[in-house]
Amino acid sequence: MPVALENSVVLDRLAHVSMARGAHDLGQRLTALDRWVKADLVEFEAELAVFPRGARVVQEAAHHLLDLGGKHLRPTCVALASRFGEGFTAKARSLAVSVELVHTATLLHDDVVDVAEHRRGKLAASVEYGNAAAIFAGDWLLVNALRKIGATKVEGLLDKMLGVIDDMILAESLQLERRGKLVANRDEYFKIVEGKTASLFRWAMIAGARAAGLDTRAEQALDQFGLHLGVAFQLIDDELDFRTGTGKDPFVDLREGKMTYPLVVAIERQPALQAQMEETLQQPDNTADFAAIANTIRETGALVATRKLAEEHANRALEALSILPEGPARDALETIVLASLERKS
Amino acid sequence: MPVALENSVVLDRLAHVSMARGAHDLGQRLTALDRWVKADLVEFEAELAVFPRGARVVQEAAHHLLDLGGKHLRPTCVALASRFGEGFTAKARSLAVSVELVHTATLLHDDVVDVAEHRRGKLAASVEYGNAAAIFAGDWLLVNALRKIGATKVEGLLDKMLGVIDDMILAESLQLERRGKLVANRDEYFKIVEGKTASLFRWAMIAGARAAGLDTRAEQALDQFGLHLGVAFQLIDDELDFRTGTGKDPFVDLREGKMTYPLVVAIERQPALQAQMEETLQQPDNTADFAAIANTIRETGALVATRKLAEEHANRALEALSILPEGPARDALETIVLASLERKS
Repeated sequence: MPVALENSVVLDRLAHVSMARGAHDLGQRLTALDRWVKADLVEFEAELAVFPRGARVVQEAAHHLLDLGGKHLRPTCVALASRFGEGFTAKARSLAVSVELVHTATLLHDDVVDVAEHRRGKLAASVEYGNAAAIFAGDWLLVNALRKIGATKVEGLLDKMLGVIDDMILAESLQLERRGKLVANRDEYFKIVEGKTASLFRWAMIAGARAAGLDTRAEQALDQFGLHLGVAFQLIDDELDFRTGTGKDPFVDLREGKMTYPLVVAIERQPALQAQMEETLQQPDNTADFAAIANTIRETGALVATRKLAEEHANRALEALSILPEGPARDALETIVLASLERKS
Repeated sequence: MPVALENSVVLDRLAHVSMARGAHDLGQRLTALDRWVKADLVEFEAELAVFPRGARVVQEAAHHLLDLGGKHLRPTCVALASRFGEGFTAKARSLAVSVELVHTATLLHDDVVDVAEHRRGKLAASVEYGNAAAIFAGDWLLVNALRKIGATKVEGLLDKMLGVIDDMILAESLQLERRGKLVANRDEYFKIVEGKTASLFRWAMIAGARAAGLDTRAEQALDQFGLHLGVAFQLIDDELDFRTGTGKDPFVDLREGKMTYPLVVAIERQPALQAQMEETLQQPDNTADFAAIANTIRETGALVATRKLAEEHANRALEALSILPEGPARDALETIVLASLERKS
């Protein structure tokens, strides 16, 4: 797997960027980033706000989730990539909205598949409007995202998005097939992460680059940035599942038998854990058990290893940026990488 | 609604075509059609057979339904439209496969939404592989159909298909919202039929026309043919729900509270039926009751009215063909219209 890193990677770039800024004042960096990115985000939100509502229940179910906001990290990626070229033009804004629509579509279908009750602190659309409406709402968002991308007429982006969605579905399918079977398989883990998470980040970076007329070398650098940011993002997501007191409920992935990276490492290091956990998963829900299992996993050093790998991918993302001109756009992307490592939700 | 016909339409064309051929020897006509179309269908099936399988459960679930065959009416429409021009080329075959993939994708999602147990005489994919796999299988077919359409590079077809899918979703949504509420609303009925059924037939005709290089006038005629064939097809589908001894289980739509055309007419003619039926729908399933209700509906003349309207649309479909050159392609399309009126499943 090209994305799998060796343990010997030296985190030069990450150390350099963190030191130059002081990890302690990440908060200030984020505030500065916020100021710099805010104008683009306001424009993005204005564009998203005019995305048609309509009278149908599928449209209502789609907007139920869209209106809850979220981090808008993927549209931010489009905006920042575009800032290396012609900027956040109408075309780039339209692509930013599209990537958020696709992301939201996958959340709608995921919540049906996972029988999830909540999303972004509210009832899941599948609970509020029913599975049927949530399925068609996802279909509707997907199709309208594709129409928007097609309408920008930026070379190759529609075709590329269709490839991304194909990757996402096959990754979701693999994850579905493996659910509850806790086999530590690194290749499969990275295949799922690349398909399910990183591919959409990559598209967002490429979309911003192409809309803004960047050359192939810059586009490839931003593509690599998206890949490693996406993997780092997912690794931290995996780790957050083991922490309490964050913005997310703990042990959700664990309870569902999802093969997260901490689980891969823990089972590699302590193979007896596999049978033990598979048995627990077949019993009815038991919070106490999961907290205890989480502790056992922590004791293998799996969470430290997860964070370390996330840092390695963060380092790779920063390395990818090094060929791009210094300035506020690069600065902002670097800050996003650091913030992804520090995030609590 | 442009598609709603006045009752005064004279069925000239239908009478003419039926008489010229003898309704009694429709079987022979179909056999002849079968011979003429068979070569194209064999090529279509060969193309469909090489559509990638893959190891993922979503791919298995998708092929579970694809492999059961079905009537392949939409691909046949692509093939016959193409025969007015350059013929059933690789491009046209690829579009024929695409329209079948989209149709199958909608069936997969419909079966999840309808909690259907069977499809084409076998377990529904959602039962055999689970809802999650069926949802993602539908997504996968949709995306791969779109990729195939994009790859043909026929002007405007990908964008048009995205519009068709949008129409289909909004029609499904409207139908979903109205389920169990038996309000006789013709405008809504035709809106749903046009979106859910006719739009894909129209696309199939246009796709065949464009792939084969037909002029705008011919394309528009075939588009109109697709519209009216689609509406006639759905009307007969509605009527078949009231008949026993066909290839389909009776009273499925009735049981689900779907607003079929016979119901629209019956409730217009006998408004008390609405409350009566809505009450029945809230009770647990009862076959005897549905047979009795079906009889009451038949007694209002609603089934005769449905057949009459189907004939009117069949007539319009035949009229649309009149500007096209006579020959085996037109002959085959005419036979399809007649066969649609006579079909038993």
